[in-house]
Amino acid sequence: MYLDNSATTRVNDEVLEEMLPYFNEEFGNPSTLYSIGRESKKALELARQRIADSINAKSDEIIFTSGGSESDNLAIKGIAFKLQKKGRHIITSEIEHPAVKETLYFLESLDFKVTYLPVYENGIIKIEDLKEAITPETILITIMHGNNEIGTLQPIEEIGQIAHDNGIVFHTDAVQTFGKVEIDVEKQNIDLLSVSSHKINGPKGVGAIYIKKGIRLVPLIHGGGQERGIRSGTENVPGIVGFGKAAELACSNLEEHAQKQSKIRDEIIEKVLDKIPEAYLNGDRNQRLPNVINFRFKAIEGESLILLLDANGYQTSTGSACSSKTLEASPVLTALGLDPVDVHGSLRISLSPDTGDFDVDDFVDVIAKSVERLRQMSPLWNNDLDYNKIVGRK
Amino acid sequence: MYLDNSATTRVNDEVLEEMLPYFNEEFGNPSTLYSIGRESKKALELARQRIADSINAKSDEIIFTSGGSESDNLAIKGIAFKLQKKGRHIITSEIEHPAVKETLYFLESLDFKVTYLPVYENGIIKIEDLKEAITPETILITIMHGNNEIGTLQPIEEIGQIAHDNGIVFHTDAVQTFGKVEIDVEKQNIDLLSVSSHKINGPKGVGAIYIKKGIRLVPLIHGGGQERGIRSGTENVPGIVGFGKAAELACSNLEEHAQKQSKIRDEIIEKVLDKIPEAYLNGDRNQRLPNVINFRFKAIEGESLILLLDANGYQTSTGSACSSKTLEASPVLTALGLDPVDVHGSLRISLSPDTGDFDVDDFVDVIAKSVERLRQMSPLWNNDLDYNKIVGRK
Ligand SMILES: Cc1ncc(COP(=O)(O)O)c(C=O)c1O
Ligand SMILES: Cc1ncc(COP(=O)(O)O)c(C=O)c1O
Repeated sequence: MYLDNSATTRVNDEVLEEMLPYFNEEFGNPSTLYSIGRESKKALELARQRIADSINAKSDEIIFTSGGSESDNLAIKGIAFKLQKKGRHIITSEIEHPAVKETLYFLESLDFKVTYLPVYENGIIKIEDLKEAITPETILITIMHGNNEIGTLQPIEEIGQIAHDNGIVFHTDAVQTFGKVEIDVEKQNIDLLSVSSHKINGPKGVGAIYIKKGIRLVPLIHGGGQERGIRSGTENVPGIVGFGKAAELACSNLEEHAQKQSKIRDEIIEKVLDKIPEAYLNGDRNQRLPNVINFRFKAIEGESLILLLDANGYQTSTGSACSSKTLEASPVLTALGLDPVDVHGSLRISLSPDTGDFDVDDFVDVIAKSVERLRQMSPLWNNDLDYNKIVGRK
Repeated sequence: MYLDNSATTRVNDEVLEEMLPYFNEEFGNPSTLYSIGRESKKALELARQRIADSINAKSDEIIFTSGGSESDNLAIKGIAFKLQKKGRHIITSEIEHPAVKETLYFLESLDFKVTYLPVYENGIIKIEDLKEAITPETILITIMHGNNEIGTLQPIEEIGQIAHDNGIVFHTDAVQTFGKVEIDVEKQNIDLLSVSSHKINGPKGVGAIYIKKGIRLVPLIHGGGQERGIRSGTENVPGIVGFGKAAELACSNLEEHAQKQSKIRDEIIEKVLDKIPEAYLNGDRNQRLPNVINFRFKAIEGESLILLLDANGYQTSTGSACSSKTLEASPVLTALGLDPVDVHGSLRISLSPDTGDFDVDDFVDVIAKSVERLRQMSPLWNNDLDYNKIVGRK
């Protein structure tokens, strides 16, 4: 049972089918003048329309990229370089994806100033903090829609409103929410929005950025002038076609998918918290993605737990795929103010519309047994021991 | 008959077959710890090895990107930002692809200095010009291997030698030559090399950059730290698998493919120059790609010619796909020192290993008739008229 859909998803069969002709039949370059290029161009524009429709945008506000990371880099560096003469201050949250965070670190190395808003125990920023952080130098607010580790949702509509009241550009990383939670760029006051195909049962290596009409930015990839000069490079036509179809499938069934997944989600949460001692849910109980759960278990190493679950046929994760190979504490869980001993014991379970019916009781049972087994081997799982002493803190 | 393989190619059937399982069976994220991610990771590393083998590199010197444009941007901006304290001067040629040229224009806007070496009538730079252009401030030489419009090859081995004698980094855009002309990064003194999958019967939206061990650069796409931190973003596993296979097929049959294609190439060149009056070959007769031909025909609009050829079943191009929709004169042909009236009448014919046997005589006949028909309608095709007067020059 694959339960790591926040990391990546299986390509939907209908999506793959729609892509196939563009590999070896309609393989023309959309920029060419002759017949075979026109078919590719048409397919490209249909995909663009589908993405636009799903977020209440116009099709010329959608630019295709190679994925969520590129979209984030393009949005943030593109605005920073464009508006650097106006100001050099950017506001973000403490729990952004590395594609945002590392981009901001890079800009800091070029003397931009960044304010990282705290998220508190529920994983959500406070609007008052945002208001206080704004200065006359602030050119960009970049705060994610849904978090990839804990699944919490930020109040982006309010954030966008405040950005606009202050003449500041608002970017949101919607890689985890697109196709799962309603997005309306008009209503939610969004100027720039990053999305990625492989999180919604589309192919890897494709993404898009919504750029509100009138917002100008410096390109990240210069060249032949494709995508209205904003993103050069021969277009990944089959990938884009697949993304368009995946977006259509996800967004036209959004409500139904969300209900189905949140039902399983809630059942898992209840049963785990009920059955397993010292188990906690990370992130806000309600303001969360329909498909993401993140637990922590006292005195457990997350890596060991997911290997045990894998051995039992359940594929899960400790959190971000990106950092799963480093042994550092998760910066997201650390930002929740959790005890450092606790941040290593996390388990992320993430569903998808194609997650079949499964036996939640068996799954929870496997988790419970695995947790118990690991705790028996853990020097931390002994109520007589002093945790702080073991981890070397005073 | 598809004869625009410099623009893009059809995905080879074996390549597509090898990609397919990675869309919906082995769809795991290569960064994850558990079983399904390990299969993706293995496939990724096999592809990396295949690319490395085909240019005499080591596999950890290959970084995957979204295509040739991204590779060029990464190489050039990456070195510029890394070495800007050492110097801010870059040397290039006048006929680079827009992915290089536009990137350099961007760097000029940030106060880098760029020298554009002339290419003369044969389309090739002179080594003496290069030597003279070098200053103590020079940090990078970026000169393409094979030109995308006219197919000429630059003396990259000598260029690399001079770069190294002067402690300068050497990048070459090998998007058009990879898989068509032997590349040996050691022997040819290359530090950075850009390649793209869709030019060698692999999928669109995938490329790679060779980065010689010891060369450090600033990433273009920051984020989760994939590709040894040099290129973040969830890896396009099926695309990369396809690229690896395409590279293997192209490079293991390189000699045979080159012979077959250059035979057709030479036959077309001879017959066109023989049958059509005022027809000329653009670029050096010998120092050229085995699969690329570029003609110019006096008093012809290239766009009209390719539309006529298309109507007759032959898909060709005027040159770069990137600029085919603008009406500007081709900067590459202009750099050859051609008369402005002549640069609009170009026709690029580009072959691929899967170009079947075809009737060259019929093809040349169609070109000849089309050229004749267009000339009959052309006010420029009248030997009594004064060309210069018509185009408004003194
Ligand atoms: C919130 C968020 N932003 C950005 C990304 C990067 O997207 P991609 O992997 O398509 O580059 C991811 C996924 O890894 C993500 O979860
Ligand atoms: C010489 C050259 N460099 C770079 C590129 C850009 O490659 P891609 O289309 O994969 O971005 C191309 C092709 O368009 C090319 O011919």
